[in-house]
Amino acid sequence: STMNGLDEEAMAPQTFLYGVVLEAGKEVVFNPDDNNLEHQLDLRMACVDPSTKDELHMVEVEGQDTEGLKVKAVLVTLKPSTLPSVCLGGFTITPPAVFRLKAGSGPIHISGQHLVMVEADQSFSEEEDED
Amino acid sequence: STMNGLDEEAMAPQTFLYGVVLEAGKEVVFNPDDNNLEHQLDLRMACVDPSTKDELHMVEVEGQDTEGLKVKAVLVTLKPSTLPSVCLGGFTITPPAVFRLKAGSGPIHISGQHLVMVEADQSFSEEEDED
Amino acid sequence: STMNGLDEEAMAPQTFLYGVVLEAGKEVVFNPDDNNLEHQLDLRMACVDPSTKDELHMVEVEGQDTEGLKVKAVLVTLKPSTLPSVCLGGFTITPPAVFRLKAGSGPIHISGQHLVMVEADQSFSEEEDED
Amino acid sequence: STMNGLDEEAMAPQTFLYGVVLEAGKEVVFNPDDNNLEHQLDLRMACVDPSTKDELHMVEVEGQDTEGLKVKAVLVTLKPSTLPSVCLGGFTITPPAVFRLKAGSGPIHISGQHLVMVEADQSFSEEEDED
Amino acid sequence: STMNGLDEEAMAPQTFLYGVVLEAGKEVVFNPDDNNLEHQLDLRMACVDPSTKDELHMVEVEGQDTEGLKVKAVLVTLKPSTLPSVCLGGFTITPPAVFRLKAGSGPIHISGQHLVMVEADQSFSEEEDED
Repeated sequence: STMNGLDEEAMAPQTFLYGVVLEAGKEVVFNPDDNNLEHQLDLRMACVDPSTKDELHMVEVEGQDTEGLKVKAVLVTLKPSTLPSVCLGGFTITPPAVFRLKAGSGPIHISGQHLVMVEADQSFSEEEDED
Repeated sequence: STMNGLDEEAMAPQTFLYGVVLEAGKEVVFNPDDNNLEHQLDLRMACVDPSTKDELHMVEVEGQDTEGLKVKAVLVTLKPSTLPSVCLGGFTITPPAVFRLKAGSGPIHISGQHLVMVEADQSFSEEEDED
Repeated sequence: STMNGLDEEAMAPQTFLYGVVLEAGKEVVFNPDDNNLEHQLDLRMACVDPSTKDELHMVEVEGQDTEGLKVKAVLVTLKPSTLPSVCLGGFTITPPAVFRLKAGSGPIHISGQHLVMVEADQSFSEEEDED
Repeated sequence: STMNGLDEEAMAPQTFLYGVVLEAGKEVVFNPDDNNLEHQLDLRMACVDPSTKDELHMVEVEGQDTEGLKVKAVLVTLKPSTLPSVCLGGFTITPPAVFRLKAGSGPIHISGQHLVMVEADQSFSEEEDED
Repeated sequence: STMNGLDEEAMAPQTFLYGVVLEAGKEVVFNPDDNNLEHQLDLRMACVDPSTKDELHMVEVEGQDTEGLKVKAVLVTLKPSTLPSVCLGGFTITPPAVFRLKAGSGPIHISGQHLVMVEADQSFSEEEDED
């Protein structure tokens, strides 16, 4: 175990809490800078809060498609008086990704798990370096 | 690793972002053209956006049943003022599939994960070819 | 691979699209007639359509309990103006099963995945027959 | 295979349909009496029916915590005119458990899968008994 | 097997019922004090009850991020007349964590499974201590 919350020797994914707040004109980037570790988000919930204006809010996520090209997808659409919370059911996000409000002024809260594991490739190359 | 986002040596499925927009009279086909790779969609969310008319929208998906025959199923029904987002909970789509609006003029956003893995059959036949 | 969509040599479950429409007075039976294959439904969504009357619709499923006796369970209750779609979250149905509307005149759409796999018992008995 | 729906030789869990109806003043106990089998519920849906009064209904489940002490938890809160169905997303219940309505007069329907598997402990002790 | 509900020899996670009630000004801590066991919550449902005031209630969870730093995330937002129950879809919480109401006076009920397993690290060190 290390000083921080991460046990770097573990092969199985370790689970941390993830939460962000989205507001108009503010992007949130998910692109952890780690050499040896693989990162993934399992998004669980999207929620308004009492200060969220009663209009339709739409959250967009930008990531990569199978060609390595930039792709945009709508993650969730919420309105405080109609649907204040939505279960995202484990929507998996692999880095690099960007979250932003495409409609509405927010705030909108996104939460879930941040999974961290030793990257398969990396562990193989370490073995090759040993001799 | 290759030039694009895909690591072709990996056996475990790799996860990419998938997002489409459905509008009246426009079909979206999911039928990736790959020899060596198996593709699958894990659909997570269906959402309206602020430009979606306040009427009932119904999304149909067309795929194959166990006899190899064409089968249609209703994926989701949304209305902006009643239910602006629905969790699809990992609805699995195997190619070839077609998405279309059966009711409503859209736009309706469908999102989730695009999984890519080396096809089991393919990897076996490659071993057989080696001798 | 065979003529139809099914690869009979595969041990892992294969995934097909499943969709049915329920209307008053019409039962839908799920009881595939196969000697060597195991069938299962993973139900994902229940949805109204624009022709569904604005009343409470209740879907019942009839299957077997652990004693082999007939058991009935409520799968979902929908009303177009309140809840036009519901995620069923992977409700697993093993054959034989029957779906019917217990309330409301429909139509109600049920969709999900039809999983097919080589039955464990069957594969064992084939090995025993070989000598 | 046995007379009933259960194959007692199987090690993998077998899946049966489970459905109960809750009404005011009526408790439903889940405590299967089996020596060799492990039982579990994966609850999927909670639903009102057309005869359910339009008031808030709250379902409580009573089970055991990690100390072996009795613990109560709220499973779901439904109201016919607001939320006639809720996906429970695979809420796992291990016996002994009791379901009851803590508010509302019902009926409320709870459904899901009843999983049965050979208990790990039991199978080990049988091996020990063999000598 | 032990006196309480926990079988300490098991390696696979054991599942117990978990339920808490959140009220304004009251924090609920999840931080089991065990040397040999790993604990995790799989949260399934958040629900109002008939005594919950008809206002927006927001539940916050506080945990640790990948740096070992304190992070806050919004778990769910509920309002009795709009959304009396929300499926949390298996939101995983690892200790130490704290639940609290950030908005609304409650009560709000959170429920799910409490998983307990022998910690991987711990089992390895016990083997090393044996000589």
